[in-house]
Amino acid sequence: MVNSPVVNMYPLSSYTFGTKEPKMEKDTSVADRLARMKVNYMKEGMRTSVEGILLVQEHRHPHILLLQIGNTFCKLPGGRLKPGENEIEGLKRKLSSKLGANSPQLQPDWQIGECVAIWWRPNFETVMYPYCPPHITKPKECKKLFIVHLSERDYFAVPKNLKLLAVPLFELYDNVHRYGPVISTIPQQLSRFQFNMMTT
Amino acid sequence: MVNSPVVNMYPLSSYTFGTKEPKMEKDTSVADRLARMKVNYMKEGMRTSVEGILLVQEHRHPHILLLQIGNTFCKLPGGRLKPGENEIEGLKRKLSSKLGANSPQLQPDWQIGECVAIWWRPNFETVMYPYCPPHITKPKECKKLFIVHLSERDYFAVPKNLKLLAVPLFELYDNVHRYGPVISTIPQQLSRFQFNMMTT
Repeated sequence: MVNSPVVNMYPLSSYTFGTKEPKMEKDTSVADRLARMKVNYMKEGMRTSVEGILLVQEHRHPHILLLQIGNTFCKLPGGRLKPGENEIEGLKRKLSSKLGANSPQLQPDWQIGECVAIWWRPNFETVMYPYCPPHITKPKECKKLFIVHLSERDYFAVPKNLKLLAVPLFELYDNVHRYGPVISTIPQQLSRFQFNMMTT
Repeated sequence: MVNSPVVNMYPLSSYTFGTKEPKMEKDTSVADRLARMKVNYMKEGMRTSVEGILLVQEHRHPHILLLQIGNTFCKLPGGRLKPGENEIEGLKRKLSSKLGANSPQLQPDWQIGECVAIWWRPNFETVMYPYCPPHITKPKECKKLFIVHLSERDYFAVPKNLKLLAVPLFELYDNVHRYGPVISTIPQQLSRFQFNMMTT
């Protein structure tokens, strides 16, 4: 048998959630966001972004932690790397910014694991693909998704303008309408893993 | 940087394709297929099936080899393991049965690589999920998809009742209507790989 990579998954109840100052979105519209992307591209070249998949269990089924903005839009914690920044260090920085406590002693020890998907943005548009499309020589963004292996217990501080949701895989699956193409196919990308349902 | 696993991809033109005797489907309808599944389940327990993702390149874009039955239905080469059979050996046996020449000297040396997805069939129905759904304690089938690393040159013998197609990732992506949920999300599962486009 081929050994599957393992993810230990602890109950949602083993984590503690607090709040911290709001982290406002930099853009107030999709048009603003694409315009800012273009400006940054001129200065720094292709944008590289990194996002973390944080897994917990409820009723022995895997759930993913998503940040909800307003009442509809959900996103993975993560963000854009600085030019030349290492992707693992950059993801840790972004996770601390989005979910870490302000006090350094309370910061989770982020364990960045397997890369599970890479998405490409060929143009300054919202659409992304899980490959660099033919004839695209200068993609505008490369987004990488990583498993984040959580400890048995941790404290997360959620920005006051956001909600942190634990969403089951069965809710994400085949739900592109609600979660978009990147998040709704995470269940397929996680299917090769062996989940150890831990009790605490 | 995290190292991505590598797949070397050779041009479609480096492979030779012949034909061999037809391999007829065991069932003539979906109802027949599900009924046979039920009978086998009673005898042998959960069905385990294995399928291979064989990759070639055309115009530096990855293509997957699919077997077409009639004018519409496409499937990956593979099939059901015998009770207790090792999944790697079983996949090699199935690949030889579906695509290998009858002469042992002409059989490709199948290199089975990474498991990229696992799908579960909770009931004797067509629907499968990329996780075992909550409350399902006795799934009826587990299907595993593996990358098959092809050699620089090979000879494939295609059963006369089937067509072998090289389908680009951009055709599979977001095309559940044509290829079904398992095959249409292969692009997302392959996105984490680094493709080396080889020339011969």
